[in-house]
Amino acid sequence: MNTNIRLTLPVVCFVWQIAMIILFGVFIRYDEESDTHWVETKAHDNITSDIENDFYFRYPSFQDVHVMIFVGFGFLMTFLKRYSFGAVGFNFLIASFGLQWALLMQGWFHSLDPQTGKIFIGVESLINADFCVAGCLIAYGAVLGKVSPVQLLVMTLFGVTLFAVEEYIILNLLHARDAGGSMVIHTFGGYYGLAISRVLYRPNLHQSKRMQGSVYHSDTFAMIGTLFLWMFWPSFNSAITDHGDGQHRAVINTYLCLASTVLTTVAISSLSQKTGKLDMVHIQNSTLAGGVALGTAAEFMISPYGALIVGFFCGIISTMGYIFISPFLEKTLKIQDTCGIHNLHAMPGVIGGIVGAITAAAASESVYGKQGLINTFDFTGDFKDRTVLTQGGYQAAGMCVSIVFGVVGGAIVGSILKLPIWGDPADENCFDDEVYWEVREPLPDEEEEHQESIPPILEYNNHMIHKQQDL
Amino acid sequence: MNTNIRLTLPVVCFVWQIAMIILFGVFIRYDEESDTHWVETKAHDNITSDIENDFYFRYPSFQDVHVMIFVGFGFLMTFLKRYSFGAVGFNFLIASFGLQWALLMQGWFHSLDPQTGKIFIGVESLINADFCVAGCLIAYGAVLGKVSPVQLLVMTLFGVTLFAVEEYIILNLLHARDAGGSMVIHTFGGYYGLAISRVLYRPNLHQSKRMQGSVYHSDTFAMIGTLFLWMFWPSFNSAITDHGDGQHRAVINTYLCLASTVLTTVAISSLSQKTGKLDMVHIQNSTLAGGVALGTAAEFMISPYGALIVGFFCGIISTMGYIFISPFLEKTLKIQDTCGIHNLHAMPGVIGGIVGAITAAAASESVYGKQGLINTFDFTGDFKDRTVLTQGGYQAAGMCVSIVFGVVGGAIVGSILKLPIWGDPADENCFDDEVYWEVREPLPDEEEEHQESIPPILEYNNHMIHKQQDL
Amino acid sequence: MNTNIRLTLPVVCFVWQIAMIILFGVFIRYDEESDTHWVETKAHDNITSDIENDFYFRYPSFQDVHVMIFVGFGFLMTFLKRYSFGAVGFNFLIASFGLQWALLMQGWFHSLDPQTGKIFIGVESLINADFCVAGCLIAYGAVLGKVSPVQLLVMTLFGVTLFAVEEYIILNLLHARDAGGSMVIHTFGGYYGLAISRVLYRPNLHQSKRMQGSVYHSDTFAMIGTLFLWMFWPSFNSAITDHGDGQHRAVINTYLCLASTVLTTVAISSLSQKTGKLDMVHIQNSTLAGGVALGTAAEFMISPYGALIVGFFCGIISTMGYIFISPFLEKTLKIQDTCGIHNLHAMPGVIGGIVGAITAAAASESVYGKQGLINTFDFTGDFKDRTVLTQGGYQAAGMCVSIVFGVVGGAIVGSILKLPIWGDPADENCFDDEVYWEVREPLPDEEEEHQESIPPILEYNNHMIHKQQDL
Repeated sequence: MNTNIRLTLPVVCFVWQIAMIILFGVFIRYDEESDTHWVETKAHDNITSDIENDFYFRYPSFQDVHVMIFVGFGFLMTFLKRYSFGAVGFNFLIASFGLQWALLMQGWFHSLDPQTGKIFIGVESLINADFCVAGCLIAYGAVLGKVSPVQLLVMTLFGVTLFAVEEYIILNLLHARDAGGSMVIHTFGGYYGLAISRVLYRPNLHQSKRMQGSVYHSDTFAMIGTLFLWMFWPSFNSAITDHGDGQHRAVINTYLCLASTVLTTVAISSLSQKTGKLDMVHIQNSTLAGGVALGTAAEFMISPYGALIVGFFCGIISTMGYIFISPFLEKTLKIQDTCGIHNLHAMPGVIGGIVGAITAAAASESVYGKQGLINTFDFTGDFKDRTVLTQGGYQAAGMCVSIVFGVVGGAIVGSILKLPIWGDPADENCFDDEVYWEVREPLPDEEEEHQESIPPILEYNNHMIHKQQDL
Repeated sequence: MNTNIRLTLPVVCFVWQIAMIILFGVFIRYDEESDTHWVETKAHDNITSDIENDFYFRYPSFQDVHVMIFVGFGFLMTFLKRYSFGAVGFNFLIASFGLQWALLMQGWFHSLDPQTGKIFIGVESLINADFCVAGCLIAYGAVLGKVSPVQLLVMTLFGVTLFAVEEYIILNLLHARDAGGSMVIHTFGGYYGLAISRVLYRPNLHQSKRMQGSVYHSDTFAMIGTLFLWMFWPSFNSAITDHGDGQHRAVINTYLCLASTVLTTVAISSLSQKTGKLDMVHIQNSTLAGGVALGTAAEFMISPYGALIVGFFCGIISTMGYIFISPFLEKTLKIQDTCGIHNLHAMPGVIGGIVGAITAAAASESVYGKQGLINTFDFTGDFKDRTVLTQGGYQAAGMCVSIVFGVVGGAIVGSILKLPIWGDPADENCFDDEVYWEVREPLPDEEEEHQESIPPILEYNNHMIHKQQDL
Repeated sequence: MNTNIRLTLPVVCFVWQIAMIILFGVFIRYDEESDTHWVETKAHDNITSDIENDFYFRYPSFQDVHVMIFVGFGFLMTFLKRYSFGAVGFNFLIASFGLQWALLMQGWFHSLDPQTGKIFIGVESLINADFCVAGCLIAYGAVLGKVSPVQLLVMTLFGVTLFAVEEYIILNLLHARDAGGSMVIHTFGGYYGLAISRVLYRPNLHQSKRMQGSVYHSDTFAMIGTLFLWMFWPSFNSAITDHGDGQHRAVINTYLCLASTVLTTVAISSLSQKTGKLDMVHIQNSTLAGGVALGTAAEFMISPYGALIVGFFCGIISTMGYIFISPFLEKTLKIQDTCGIHNLHAMPGVIGGIVGAITAAAASESVYGKQGLINTFDFTGDFKDRTVLTQGGYQAAGMCVSIVFGVVGGAIVGSILKLPIWGDPADENCFDDEVYWEVREPLPDEEEEHQESIPPILEYNNHMIHKQQDL
């Protein structure tokens, strides 16, 4: 197969980046809090101190989310013995493109000013762009090692587009709440990636068996990704929640939920082996499932022990997913899921949607307070007469929308990616950085193989022996 | 020895996590700043903007502390050639359990509401829970590689319990100041770990000599831990100090102290070798001693040059500890201290306690200002008539309490851990991830050994030779 | 060559650190926002909440910058197969010294209180000290692997001194704006390092050819540095800009600019290879050029698409620099630039200076608003009548100052470093950690070589054969 991307990759990068520049020139402007006219805005809004600029409410969370996107997702995928460059490098590439396209797509759908025809961006827009990119990076996890960077860029272009539409339907039309994106990010991203992987099924993937699996240090690198995702997930789930108690509560809930997940992940991982040994695959991935599953309900009054319960079950379910469901999916449904995103994002995302729907439906004025209920579920404007039960229904509807968009969108995009023009690797070259990267050092195994093919000592000895025989 | 933990580890994880859920359900609630009733609280307290929610004062510091706990402590211990999974993974496990138990224990002792019988938690509680966990992770450093994960969980259970009690005595009863925990965290954690290690003394530990020491990349991984600890230590020492100047000053002091420590650590490390070469062990550990030693005094008006002086001596003492004291402790006192926590936490912690006592006793109204003195030492309520001299005395008393709790508590817990039911490794299997982890790639050394044991070329040649002889 | 630094390194560390303590004792005090008198300051300045302490505006950015200095710069340089200890460790050492000296130098030039003769420091001083250190770490990149730690300390001593002077001229006398330091940090640091490297030219550097280049995991480690620099660059460029819209806008601009740089870097890197493979050297370095080039203009109303355009061209120019200019510089100008700082800092820094001059000259009241223009360019006091055109001229003048200081200063300091007293490595020992570090594990290549020199199997067989012959 032709994996030469010397034409396609530069062309796509250049053309798309130029398109971004033109579209940004036409549409994107600073919002009033990042514009030099802020001094007048402040006076107008009776703001007494610069510290009330939204920047100071959200920037620390934004930077944490940014670390999750680039170091978290990037390093989590370095576990393969010889695909670290592709994991970190392509993650870097598609996230950098995706966030620009997301600012446009999300802007058109959510914040296009009807009067000026402009999109005004601030720190919250950057967070949302990073969120949107997360959906595509999740999908990357399913096809890791089996696609070319050009395919990844195409996947991201369509992924961001689909994301913006489903997000508009779920958050604006259905008015569902989903601050940490259990539905819009994880469920969508998970099924989008799985559907693409299904369409791109490789029956002979076993030919690159030697490149699958990890080595000791690649597993250690992956833990960098795991830990930065785990530690900063409270920021992820609270980054765009309400100022004040909203951000505060989302952090507490996510912090607790994730702690609980770690213990049950360890328990199930240990149970799954004859002598109780732990498996790094589970520790690297399933410990994060709690964060995914609290994406919707993190800002609700789910109460601390409620958060622990969610985490408890997510650790169990996600780890069991790695042990039982992933092999089943591959054999029966022909879904090859490199990083196990079904167990880390798709399933926990659906759980998160359900938890969100139930906790919304069960919300009460006695727990939230009258104004608290209105603030938390934003029962204002067109939605000021909505009851919590109705809200629960719309939450559930939102989850269905995200699944449908993921599956159908992924199937269509997968078909596009099947065209034989994208330079994807042959079955025997999957999971190998050599295909798309200048690698200066051969894999230790290959070095040995190489040595075996020219065994100088043996030859020398044979030579000696033959000489002897001549004597 | 039986290292099968397939029964004990899952049982402990499940039972303890379920216990946490029940106890959280009974006791833990959101505090008023993370509850939806915040909108009413705000009105009541005349707060004009959400930005005055404690969340915005403390969350950036909290996240830095969180990184120190999971990446900092975790990666600092990856220096061993084949114990990176255990270092990062068990650190992850025990911290995740410990923080839940800490919220309960610290809650019962410090913030149980007498009216409702509930513990109300907010971002400061999360920081304190992370702090409490730090004490146990320090203790882990002493026994790294020599205990099972079940033992570590038991160690953490008791460690957190002891911590909450000694912290209550030192901070509430003695009313000592210790914002960065020189005494309550580092001195306690250090002696707790050393006492446990003493009780678990292994006379035949040399049998796992081949697994001790580092390889090149494991030392580089450890530097990730070192640097994140070093960089974020100013956040650690300032995370729960007073709003405003208190946090500001604690950051400046810690920043300067740590910089000074690096230079003297390098100096002593270089002096200790014939040709002046540096030792990674010193750079990884002793550079952090200044942060430990300023844990008590960071919020005081110790003045910038005072901070430099503390750092200066800590770098010297800690590095000398690695060179002279650690071998002495092992030989004479039979304390096997894998990470040298005596040099990094115990000794600098004691220094920090002394520095705190002296600087407190030397505080004056001319330096602090009348109100500043009251704020800094919290001379209010029952303590409003306390003098700085008395305060200095109570600081010193606090340090003694932390040492006693560490030594006695560690001795008792060590005895419990000696029971032959915890699945700890045999002497020859210490420091080896293979015992508790599925390791897919053998250690390079072992690969070679393996090759030596089946030398196919040799056999082949012998065969040839024998055939020849038959001729 | 004598690389014994057992005398010089400890002496330099001790003497300089003691000098720091004395000078800090004489000059450095807490500023009013980090002093216990803050309670009175607040009342005096009508500040209603502690949250308006400058600490809360700047601390999150400070910590990001701190990570860039120690993890970012440190790990970016770990790409060499056997110089990771030196990269991270010496970076750690010189930054720790440099930031102390920078607080003094910058204090004397910028904030010496004429009445008291004291320098008052707060969180902004810490950021500026880190910035100053960045200039010296950039210079380290050019000489990485070819100098001793003592030389690096000398380089830092003079580098910080020169930095403080050129910064004073550019920011105070010329009143140029340069919040992210395109000119004062990157241009100066770049040329300072290149000039030193030129003076220290080693014609026989090819003798350490085997130590040049990377191995697989050293490239992965370097990506940790790259990503933390890339992610936190928005904090770098916004750390000391105006409260409110100034910080907000600088973040948006830098975020966008860097995203654009990634795409064009990938495009050119792919174009440069026959089959379109990517080169890690480009991904590790050139992706950062956009952040450098927006150092001056980040706080201006350059508009989002303007930021994208700057990033677009920087990715192209920087990557081409690695492909064409670096080899040219080495051959023709005899500048051996280990990390390619010419492509990552010097060139993009100059571009940043030019962009800054043009966008300043093109600023208008219609875009900025009357007050916004005054705020952004600080047209107050002595400069209240300055026009934007004049400002553009002074910006350009500032850039020339930074180049001159870099080149001339570097040439002089290079000559000092040529003295044969600093313990620098011989040509054949460059890029080798063994020279200054206790390395416990030999390089894999060397291990193999070692094995070849004692081929026991061969010997054994020979022995057998000889024995046979005797038969």
